[in-house]
Amino acid sequence: MLLESQKDKAYQLFSEIQAKLVACFEAIDGEARAVPHRWQKQTSGAGGGTSLVVRGEVIEKAGVNCSRVTGDRYPRLESEHHDKPFFATGVSTICHMRNPHAPIGHMNVRLLEVGDKFWFGGGADLTPFIVYDEDRQDFHACLQKVCATFETGAYAKFSRWCDEYFFIKHRNSPRGVGGVFFDYLSDDFERLLTFVHNLAFAYAEIYPQILLRRKDTPYDEQQRDGQLRWRGRYVEFNLVYDRGTHFGLQSGGDVEAILVSLPPLVKW
Amino acid sequence: MLLESQKDKAYQLFSEIQAKLVACFEAIDGEARAVPHRWQKQTSGAGGGTSLVVRGEVIEKAGVNCSRVTGDRYPRLESEHHDKPFFATGVSTICHMRNPHAPIGHMNVRLLEVGDKFWFGGGADLTPFIVYDEDRQDFHACLQKVCATFETGAYAKFSRWCDEYFFIKHRNSPRGVGGVFFDYLSDDFERLLTFVHNLAFAYAEIYPQILLRRKDTPYDEQQRDGQLRWRGRYVEFNLVYDRGTHFGLQSGGDVEAILVSLPPLVKW
Repeated sequence: MLLESQKDKAYQLFSEIQAKLVACFEAIDGEARAVPHRWQKQTSGAGGGTSLVVRGEVIEKAGVNCSRVTGDRYPRLESEHHDKPFFATGVSTICHMRNPHAPIGHMNVRLLEVGDKFWFGGGADLTPFIVYDEDRQDFHACLQKVCATFETGAYAKFSRWCDEYFFIKHRNSPRGVGGVFFDYLSDDFERLLTFVHNLAFAYAEIYPQILLRRKDTPYDEQQRDGQLRWRGRYVEFNLVYDRGTHFGLQSGGDVEAILVSLPPLVKW
Repeated sequence: MLLESQKDKAYQLFSEIQAKLVACFEAIDGEARAVPHRWQKQTSGAGGGTSLVVRGEVIEKAGVNCSRVTGDRYPRLESEHHDKPFFATGVSTICHMRNPHAPIGHMNVRLLEVGDKFWFGGGADLTPFIVYDEDRQDFHACLQKVCATFETGAYAKFSRWCDEYFFIKHRNSPRGVGGVFFDYLSDDFERLLTFVHNLAFAYAEIYPQILLRRKDTPYDEQQRDGQLRWRGRYVEFNLVYDRGTHFGLQSGGDVEAILVSLPPLVKW
């Protein structure tokens, strides 16, 4: 069983990541300011969260959610822990830039406790419509560095897991250019919290750097149109396959906060 | 077991419905002409289909699919028929109008045979962003008339089933103003085929009538914006809950044909 102080500490660190990311997005946009949406869990549990959304000319839509909830019944049917009481806290972010040269970025880290078990999960991945090798390499190098401080072989394992997880089966295509993904990490609490915090912090450094590189690159209507269609695949992945989205929708999370990941404008 | 001649007859009638609907959409638009996309099943089965898509100024996007496929393994996990060989033929249509006064319309009828069982399923429903009672009443009256020729109580049963099925759980909201939905109808083949054909034919009469009423109603940017956001819910339903979509994606159907239902432009 986790101590309340451990839950508090995780939530505290996740809140700091949220604040750091939002400050980055506001700075990159230059004009737009985050609009907060605070929500409370209405049914079968307690807690809530804050969703911060930046919508501007440069940052077309970026959402950063941080939440801390309890529930009476863990909703994932396929889990051995199905129907047990749970605690969850996490921070998640997705950013859709107006400029089609700038990649969609996603990061999420979370702590779950169900019954008497706890585990950490999370990931970070990049989805460019127009692929720049430099961005992909820098993003992966940054994640690899964090993983190296955690465990030998972690980057190889987590980046393979990412490729498997963020795969759009019906299109037989990866979602983007990868990153890391992991779940069910459950040995030493402090060590794991340090790792996910380092990962989230590193993401909040590298992703804004990549955006600064690409936000002013000239683009034409055809590239913008391609970007809007490319975003359709992102929606398909999130609504058809993503466990975070399904967990949120099934566990009575706030719909606006959960679906803040969906792009501002999409074409099919 | 169905006879080949029965499968042929169903497919033939469904193809006629497809042609009728496409002609209506082309006539309503006035300019746009349907673009055909023919596909063949690539894996674990045979057959294929034709997806016809009309994209124009009035009809922003309308798709009408007709297909006839076999497969080695029925993909629905929850079915007692899971993994048995199957045959499926059907016609389906969704139309998204540019004018926010004109409702989204959906209709689908299908025949399945799995192992030694066959059944019909289908439905038709209307999703207006701006609700007109006249449209809703005429649509329901038309479906009720068809159901009355089929079986006492059918309309009451199928319209309730529609309300239950086309419900967006995470938003605790119906998708639209209802219609009919049914599945697993499996007594007399001829009687059932006549019913689903009558239903599809009636839809191809009433829905275009409703569009003609609404296609030229003046609208402002705010209404257009509301329509694009409203369409987001349609996407959420189709990708998170719709069995037809999941069946298609899981059974190796053609992705472009299956996702032709998704709106041309959406905001979140």
